[in-house]
Amino acid sequence: MQTSLKIAVVGSGLVGSLLAIYLKKAGHTVHVFDRSPDIRTIQFSGRSINLAMSHRGWRAVNDIGIGEEIRKIATPMDKRAIHLVGQPLTYQYYGQEGECIFSISRGVLNRKMISLAEEAGVEFFFNSRIWDVNLTEATLHIGETERGAWEDLKYDKIFGADGAFSRVRHRMQRQSMFNYSQEFLNIGYKELNIPANPDGTHKLDKNSLHIWPRREFMLIALPNLDGSFTCTLFMPFEGENSFEALRDKETLEAFFATHFPSTVDVIPKLVEDFFKNPTSTLVTMKCYPWTYEDKIALIGDACHAIVPFYGHGMNAGFEDITVLNRLMQEHGDDWKTIFSKYQQERKPNADAIAELSYRNFIEMSSDTADPRFLLRKKIEKWFSEKHPQLWLPLYSRVTFSYRPYAEALAIGDHQKAIMDEIMAISGIEDNWDSPETERRILDLLQGIPK
Amino acid sequence: MQTSLKIAVVGSGLVGSLLAIYLKKAGHTVHVFDRSPDIRTIQFSGRSINLAMSHRGWRAVNDIGIGEEIRKIATPMDKRAIHLVGQPLTYQYYGQEGECIFSISRGVLNRKMISLAEEAGVEFFFNSRIWDVNLTEATLHIGETERGAWEDLKYDKIFGADGAFSRVRHRMQRQSMFNYSQEFLNIGYKELNIPANPDGTHKLDKNSLHIWPRREFMLIALPNLDGSFTCTLFMPFEGENSFEALRDKETLEAFFATHFPSTVDVIPKLVEDFFKNPTSTLVTMKCYPWTYEDKIALIGDACHAIVPFYGHGMNAGFEDITVLNRLMQEHGDDWKTIFSKYQQERKPNADAIAELSYRNFIEMSSDTADPRFLLRKKIEKWFSEKHPQLWLPLYSRVTFSYRPYAEALAIGDHQKAIMDEIMAISGIEDNWDSPETERRILDLLQGIPK
Repeated sequence: MQTSLKIAVVGSGLVGSLLAIYLKKAGHTVHVFDRSPDIRTIQFSGRSINLAMSHRGWRAVNDIGIGEEIRKIATPMDKRAIHLVGQPLTYQYYGQEGECIFSISRGVLNRKMISLAEEAGVEFFFNSRIWDVNLTEATLHIGETERGAWEDLKYDKIFGADGAFSRVRHRMQRQSMFNYSQEFLNIGYKELNIPANPDGTHKLDKNSLHIWPRREFMLIALPNLDGSFTCTLFMPFEGENSFEALRDKETLEAFFATHFPSTVDVIPKLVEDFFKNPTSTLVTMKCYPWTYEDKIALIGDACHAIVPFYGHGMNAGFEDITVLNRLMQEHGDDWKTIFSKYQQERKPNADAIAELSYRNFIEMSSDTADPRFLLRKKIEKWFSEKHPQLWLPLYSRVTFSYRPYAEALAIGDHQKAIMDEIMAISGIEDNWDSPETERRILDLLQGIPK
Repeated sequence: MQTSLKIAVVGSGLVGSLLAIYLKKAGHTVHVFDRSPDIRTIQFSGRSINLAMSHRGWRAVNDIGIGEEIRKIATPMDKRAIHLVGQPLTYQYYGQEGECIFSISRGVLNRKMISLAEEAGVEFFFNSRIWDVNLTEATLHIGETERGAWEDLKYDKIFGADGAFSRVRHRMQRQSMFNYSQEFLNIGYKELNIPANPDGTHKLDKNSLHIWPRREFMLIALPNLDGSFTCTLFMPFEGENSFEALRDKETLEAFFATHFPSTVDVIPKLVEDFFKNPTSTLVTMKCYPWTYEDKIALIGDACHAIVPFYGHGMNAGFEDITVLNRLMQEHGDDWKTIFSKYQQERKPNADAIAELSYRNFIEMSSDTADPRFLLRKKIEKWFSEKHPQLWLPLYSRVTFSYRPYAEALAIGDHQKAIMDEIMAISGIEDNWDSPETERRILDLLQGIPK
């Protein structure tokens, strides 16, 4: 057991509120600060992308005993549903039979997590803006405005769970030897909505993550409990097919009629939502170190914000908590060791999921529409079922396993090199499940970590 | 001619003061702000590395008519002098006969530049700390402390020439879509000193850049006008041979006796300077965009801080000014176009010199001590003299030409690939200047940009 401490968590988002539950249940006094109002009292922002909770996320909520509560608000998705213009709908299964990712509304989950944290005894302070942090003293500077009067609150530890634009990190960044990068994509996103049928059922298959892949841009839709889907349109800010180009109702409607004809009947408030909802940016943020002595630690997006194309932002943040919790159990009151091992263990994995997420835009927006990609996936699945000890597909290793992300990235690159060779075999379309193909993959696997 | 404007330059360093001269001579009212006292009134910091001014730097000072003044404080260096333990001193010439880089004390040059700027009519405001900038209004917020009272000063344009930790950039960084990275090396540096002989002469050859290459660490020495040398010790912060390991007088003296025996007699104040002077960090900083509408522009280290191993930090910053000045002449009062073309033209070149500088630590600290590297250089020089239209060595293209850095990087990589093949030829040591070698290089050059 650890000695009970007074701990501040900055940020009441998903990672902040789950971390608060863990810390509270570990015996600490936990105060959570957020610059925003209580999300349970306000409307959602209209700038959200539904979450895709998978193994790593589930483990973190299960381990602290709130998995059952979360499952009630989650919709399983076992496949991608691919919508191509003028072609029948096709399905691409994510994993083995029974393996699913789960669609959850970010807002619904966040409200639930805050309530669960309060029930656990965590205290929340909303509308409380942190302007600065004294790192050596673990003191928060809180106030109405950046230049106005501030109140100083002293803690034993402070966790920065305050997202990609973290104020806690902002202070650490001004230390010497702090490595940092932020890189924005030229692609933005906008939230749209497919409402439920009048009887509350879903207008599209509810156990699929729907994708309309159009190469430079794509639309996706994830199911909600109430029969609706939260849609996200990803496209460049500028250029031919871009947010900039969709300036008025006529252009927008013509664009959707051309590129997303199957959505015209199911997104009734397209024009209203498109021009009302903000166009949001996508950033990859990396930094190091993540901790300051035994006083301050960053967690989740505050130290590794990634683009959403692998659906792992929350899962990676929750896995930070799993690792931190394990280290707290192993090292008791030795917070210096806990923080040091935490950042050393997590940093390479955060970098790996950042890279995988960045790459996955291509997979979602282009590859899913490519018959060669489908053949590749089919071969991988066939071989993997024959030799489960030798081949776990990359997607499964990332999503349906607890293996480190860095391992997934490295082995995924090996597998890709092998599959590139296999796909180059002349006539592979007809011999994809032949003994020769199997033999060739086995040969190529020699010397490669399983 | 441009319409006369009121322009603020933040930072009175080398780039800030040279830019101020250019702007003043272009007819503008120019105010330069610096958080520090006037460098002409204070002692130097003891954390400097001597500058190596080369073609790009000279062009910028010549074009505005102050080249003659600067030449008076510059010492030409036409070669590296390589000091190996137990071996005779060797020299490696930088370019063709007569091609030199010039050693200048940063402090001496900065004092001179400020005086020249004042003579030109620029106004300086020292001890004036900029805490924030209003980008859209081009207003500086100045005050004693970050949280105290601020004065607001409004300008037509603001240039951020305030270095790697720029406050102006700091504000731009908080804009959406601002890409940024800062990455520290694990290598730090410390200034040391070789004083002049009693008669004012230099203790080592004064027309050489002296290097004591020791792989993971190295010492360099650059001549000053007064007969002294400014030395810089580069080494890791931690590990076997590191700043951390040199904790006391005895360890330090033993270390120098072992690794730099030839310096023992010429650095008399080793112990005093080593423990008095700070250990400084080395950072590569990249960002984009560099400008905000037609109001704000970053320049020099404020938008592209690089490590010092190519001696091009100042040269690259001065080249920013050359480009900006050319665009001011081409586009008159169309500052939007000036700023837009400025950043588009300079960004790839800034990235290229950052990469070249990063790589050059290996060349300086390891390759210069490697006979294979010397052979490689010898072959390049020989071929280049035979075929000057076909082969300009990388160092010469960076240092003794005005070709874009990005071109130097790209062509340098091609040349390296060719030289890797040449060096792999069996018996090349004996046939390095044979007709076969010449023929082989010519063959390999086919299809490669000259």
